[in-house]
Amino acid sequence: MTGLGIIAGGGDLPIAIAVSARDAGKHVFVAALLGIADDRVAQFPHEWVSLGQTGRTLSLFRQHKCEDILLAGKVTRPKWNEIKFDATALRKLPKVMAAALQGDDALLRSLVAVLESEGFHVVSAAEAAPGLLASEGAFGRHGPSSQHEADIALGIGVVRALGAFDVGQAAVVCDGLVLAVEAAEGTDAMIKRVETLSENIRGTTKKPRGVLLKARKATQDGRTDLPVIGVQTVQNAAAAGLAGIAVEAGAALIVNRQGIVKAADDSGLFVCGFKSPQSSV
Amino acid sequence: MTGLGIIAGGGDLPIAIAVSARDAGKHVFVAALLGIADDRVAQFPHEWVSLGQTGRTLSLFRQHKCEDILLAGKVTRPKWNEIKFDATALRKLPKVMAAALQGDDALLRSLVAVLESEGFHVVSAAEAAPGLLASEGAFGRHGPSSQHEADIALGIGVVRALGAFDVGQAAVVCDGLVLAVEAAEGTDAMIKRVETLSENIRGTTKKPRGVLLKARKATQDGRTDLPVIGVQTVQNAAAAGLAGIAVEAGAALIVNRQGIVKAADDSGLFVCGFKSPQSSV
Repeated sequence: MTGLGIIAGGGDLPIAIAVSARDAGKHVFVAALLGIADDRVAQFPHEWVSLGQTGRTLSLFRQHKCEDILLAGKVTRPKWNEIKFDATALRKLPKVMAAALQGDDALLRSLVAVLESEGFHVVSAAEAAPGLLASEGAFGRHGPSSQHEADIALGIGVVRALGAFDVGQAAVVCDGLVLAVEAAEGTDAMIKRVETLSENIRGTTKKPRGVLLKARKATQDGRTDLPVIGVQTVQNAAAAGLAGIAVEAGAALIVNRQGIVKAADDSGLFVCGFKSPQSSV
Repeated sequence: MTGLGIIAGGGDLPIAIAVSARDAGKHVFVAALLGIADDRVAQFPHEWVSLGQTGRTLSLFRQHKCEDILLAGKVTRPKWNEIKFDATALRKLPKVMAAALQGDDALLRSLVAVLESEGFHVVSAAEAAPGLLASEGAFGRHGPSSQHEADIALGIGVVRALGAFDVGQAAVVCDGLVLAVEAAEGTDAMIKRVETLSENIRGTTKKPRGVLLKARKATQDGRTDLPVIGVQTVQNAAAAGLAGIAVEAGAALIVNRQGIVKAADDSGLFVCGFKSPQSSV
């Protein structure tokens, strides 16, 4: 059986995927990005690699019999001039740099192409850890109202319309009004911003209103970057006075579902998976 | 000759329109929204009115022989339960409230409908003060590079795609990457946010990069809400490390062009009007 090699960026997601794959009986090896990945990778066979060590990383995967490779976790766009590239990296670099200028999706697609040209098979988080995929319907005790469902539908439209521009995967909608759209700032910062808006158009912790919507971008390659929520997302949404969170069923990753359900139930939020309508793009 | 009645919200715009119309020889009367409009309305024939005094406002316009009415300036969405409505307001209210739930554009269209049903003619800022409309090409000493022009084109696409959802009219794009999209937070807050992003993907005051793009929403009724820039917009853009600002020629309002050109030239920014491609919506 081929092992699963994980190139781990920051945050909980690479750890959650590794745990899920290991629990499913897979052999896991982690190439942890130096200064970026979480120390909890230490519970798996692993090596620390820096961003420019493409050749070394690929050798490690071969050595550990990993043919399936997965990229996961947050990586801030690197300062290219501070990276020390090894020979393999330098050979692949021009294509990757050119792609990087075209946006995150293009950059990730180019990294996938590099790995596949070296004989690896790039797998999605959905393939490596299907247990993390959002299911349809309410996760916890609370569910969306019909107003929330209308807001979810509006948010899906916004994210779909922006997918073609390689812009974020999330929006906040409250009673028919789009309060915030995510671009480069990330979901946490976007949720936080809702708290700065006039109370007339948003909810409060006392009277929650509005929905955080996360969906897959139309252009998004599932192998590289699915939308993710975790316990922190629920806590942030509650603090911002939102009534709930909706994620695309089968196309969003749920890190620590048990913790999410508890946080949502405790704060009165709903968290639900919605069935995606056919993309209109 | 019929006079111009201005319902003045906050900020510089209503004042700039009133000055421009007066200088063009028009009779101007301002209904200044109490607690919202700027004190500089005092230089014009004016009365202070509160948001619920629809009947009184319309009487004042009739009294001052204003048949052309213009709505201008920022108005935060009101707390409906704190407004004291007069009889006329109460009569018109159900329709306006229903529209308010559908977003800013619907709310403004509904206010226009109320004014027109009372025999007034609602004019756009473009009609009342054509001198404020953005012209095509560079305003000051600096102009956009071809990279900037590519970023402008991308930003136009983003704003156009979102127009159908009644979302903001502005975006920040840097070297092909969409950094920020405006929704309910307003342009100033969106520009400010760019400063919080990683320096790898944005400009700095020392090495400016990226463009602020303001365009008319696809659904936007020109009589109620055109995109606006002022000196503060230029100062904010410079502080956020942007290289320039592009506004839609003939469809954006320039408040204090002289001041804008000076601020842009002093800080090395370009400010330009772009010809809108045919909307694809």
